[in-house]
Amino acid sequence: MSAKTLKLTVAYDGAEYCGWQRQPQRRTVQGELERAWLAITSEEVTFNAAGRTDSGVHAAGQVASVDSETTVPVERLADALNSHLPADMLVVAAEHAPAGFHATHDAHHKRYRYSIYTGRSRPLFCRGFAWHVPAPLDVAAMQRGADLMVGTHDFASLQSVGSPRENTVRTIFEATVCAGGEGMASPVVGAGQGGAVAIAPGSPLSESADLITIDVVGDGFLYHMVRTIAGTLADVGRGRRPPEWVAEAIAARDRGAAGQTAPAHGLMLVSVDY
Amino acid sequence: MSAKTLKLTVAYDGAEYCGWQRQPQRRTVQGELERAWLAITSEEVTFNAAGRTDSGVHAAGQVASVDSETTVPVERLADALNSHLPADMLVVAAEHAPAGFHATHDAHHKRYRYSIYTGRSRPLFCRGFAWHVPAPLDVAAMQRGADLMVGTHDFASLQSVGSPRENTVRTIFEATVCAGGEGMASPVVGAGQGGAVAIAPGSPLSESADLITIDVVGDGFLYHMVRTIAGTLADVGRGRRPPEWVAEAIAARDRGAAGQTAPAHGLMLVSVDY
Repeated sequence: MSAKTLKLTVAYDGAEYCGWQRQPQRRTVQGELERAWLAITSEEVTFNAAGRTDSGVHAAGQVASVDSETTVPVERLADALNSHLPADMLVVAAEHAPAGFHATHDAHHKRYRYSIYTGRSRPLFCRGFAWHVPAPLDVAAMQRGADLMVGTHDFASLQSVGSPRENTVRTIFEATVCAGGEGMASPVVGAGQGGAVAIAPGSPLSESADLITIDVVGDGFLYHMVRTIAGTLADVGRGRRPPEWVAEAIAARDRGAAGQTAPAHGLMLVSVDY
Repeated sequence: MSAKTLKLTVAYDGAEYCGWQRQPQRRTVQGELERAWLAITSEEVTFNAAGRTDSGVHAAGQVASVDSETTVPVERLADALNSHLPADMLVVAAEHAPAGFHATHDAHHKRYRYSIYTGRSRPLFCRGFAWHVPAPLDVAAMQRGADLMVGTHDFASLQSVGSPRENTVRTIFEATVCAGGEGMASPVVGAGQGGAVAIAPGSPLSESADLITIDVVGDGFLYHMVRTIAGTLADVGRGRRPPEWVAEAIAARDRGAAGQTAPAHGLMLVSVDY
């Protein structure tokens, strides 16, 4: 039996997970996935993920890779795993990958979405998926600020202390701010081989007239970087800072120069491209 | 201090409630609302609701009325109540009503929505708000079946045993089946004085390509009637029954003639008109 490399697309409601990464005595996405894998294949494996999402962060299209000798046919893997996974987690797709494929190292770009609920009262149906900023936000100003993030920059200002990276240069390919969920009218999840949970329009859960989304696509992200982008753009949206301040904050290469780290539950890893 | 009549619009995620109606030792919407009311007004009151939703059923625009002598200004009531209500419940609006207004008796028509998720895998983000029917459903056939429900009929076939009404004649004004959340592109919540939580398109929670919604507007509904409508139309959608069967099932005036009672968590009371 020869080892093969498999690629899984995984979705989860992060509320009850201590993030992706396996930890003793903690409920984690990796831990649940490896437990389900053991149940159906009797293999003890370690999955690699495209993005090691933090505690409370959601995913529609996380990607995980594994080397395995399982005899379970690939087309039956997702159903088999899902029957062993809890309700707040789902394997959306399982497929063969080229030998040596590594979900973390081979990721070309990742798309994250940060959702902000701007209604005056607290959100109800989307309360687990959006940060409540009870103020009218200037979406056009936020977009001008977001435009200043696009490109290759040293993003040290947007990295939380506690998990520093030596190289803080990253490339942001796209940063789009949408109001009222309008950006969701087009499918945001790439129709890649792996598929993903669609997060297109039309849900009974939405309070979308008051929903603002920030989509960020980049080749990699520093610790808390998307959440700091959200906090920084919220300051611009509220008029506390002009859009141009975003460029100044990045240029300062100092965490204190940017906005707050927005809460984890507003963040979703939408998709990963290879 | 003279008594006045107040009208509240209330939204809730029904998952953790044993329905609207107050019951000893149970968490109910009415119980939580009356507890919050007592906290801010020191009044022990009884609220009347437009629809006494069952355990697990959601509401975006439930309406409740109460006679009160509170001195809390009506424009501050919603915020005051919300600060005492749990996260899965929200007073969307509070307003004066004509003396003697009664949310139950004065309701002219109510709109309910039943959501069905037809994806092959179980739903993830909408799992608390949609019934999983893992089969392609023929929406056009379902709509033809729904059309046969519109009008004034004896709906005894669609009433669950256990809570029979003497008069089982009701009028359905509208029954609309939509695929992919397209029906949600237009605002479904009336912009009545009371407002309601908007459930328009665009949510990070949606898996809408696989979502089918059944909107039913009627002057009143029998016990489990909308859930039985959903179960009946699902049989039509799956091709187990032709659309014409809906008329036969109603004409039989026998619960056994119609489809199953769909589960509570797919149902939402959208709005009430007076």
